[in-house]
Amino acid sequence: MDISHIEHIGIAVKSITDSLPYYENILGLKCYNIEEVADQKVKTAFFKVGQTKIELLEPTSDDSTIAKFIENRGEGVHHLAFAVSNVADALAEVEAKGVRLIDKAPRKGAEGLSIAFLHPKSTAGVLTELCQ
Amino acid sequence: MDISHIEHIGIAVKSITDSLPYYENILGLKCYNIEEVADQKVKTAFFKVGQTKIELLEPTSDDSTIAKFIENRGEGVHHLAFAVSNVADALAEVEAKGVRLIDKAPRKGAEGLSIAFLHPKSTAGVLTELCQ
Repeated sequence: MDISHIEHIGIAVKSITDSLPYYENILGLKCYNIEEVADQKVKTAFFKVGQTKIELLEPTSDDSTIAKFIENRGEGVHHLAFAVSNVADALAEVEAKGVRLIDKAPRKGAEGLSIAFLHPKSTAGVLTELCQ
Repeated sequence: MDISHIEHIGIAVKSITDSLPYYENILGLKCYNIEEVADQKVKTAFFKVGQTKIELLEPTSDDSTIAKFIENRGEGVHHLAFAVSNVADALAEVEAKGVRLIDKAPRKGAEGLSIAFLHPKSTAGVLTELCQ
């Protein structure tokens, strides 16, 4: 797989409003976009740190996977997203190597990216996203 | 604070040997260093992905903080490390802003870096390291 860099790090938070002061005032990062991704039942906030974005994920519904993640494990890093040149090709390649997929085909994620998730059972415990 | 990029992402794993095939054969990354950090009771394995390193952390003792993390939350992302130009200055700055520190002064981490950890109670749930 041709991973060029870490596209983003998804961090589950209870409240973007409550978390923003840490990222902006303490770390000195600038939130450049807040966006709702309706089909994932989350509100997202983005910061750029070098090549990589930090994506805060706030659940907009109690049955959001992010709400369940926070309930089970607390706030924290939810997934890592690697930038690849072609998500469909990368999915085919890893599936052929026995990786379990959450998304069998690329779908639309935040910021208009083409994305797909691999299953953490196949990725040494880290929920992993491929992005293009 | 003058964060330039994400220096590394620390991932707690039960076994580096068991996790290596995922990083090397599936993701296609190359492990360039395996190193024991005795005072943290961990063995570490490093991969480079663009500007950022992935640091696998395997506990070498049952009373390692990484062993406790895995016991409580399972394998997964343990901490994020931001690159700053001066760790001591950055610590003074965030402490003045009310951030709780794990390390009051920089100490030596893996790969000879000067490092310090902030407390996750002050960092929106993510254990955060500063690196220089």
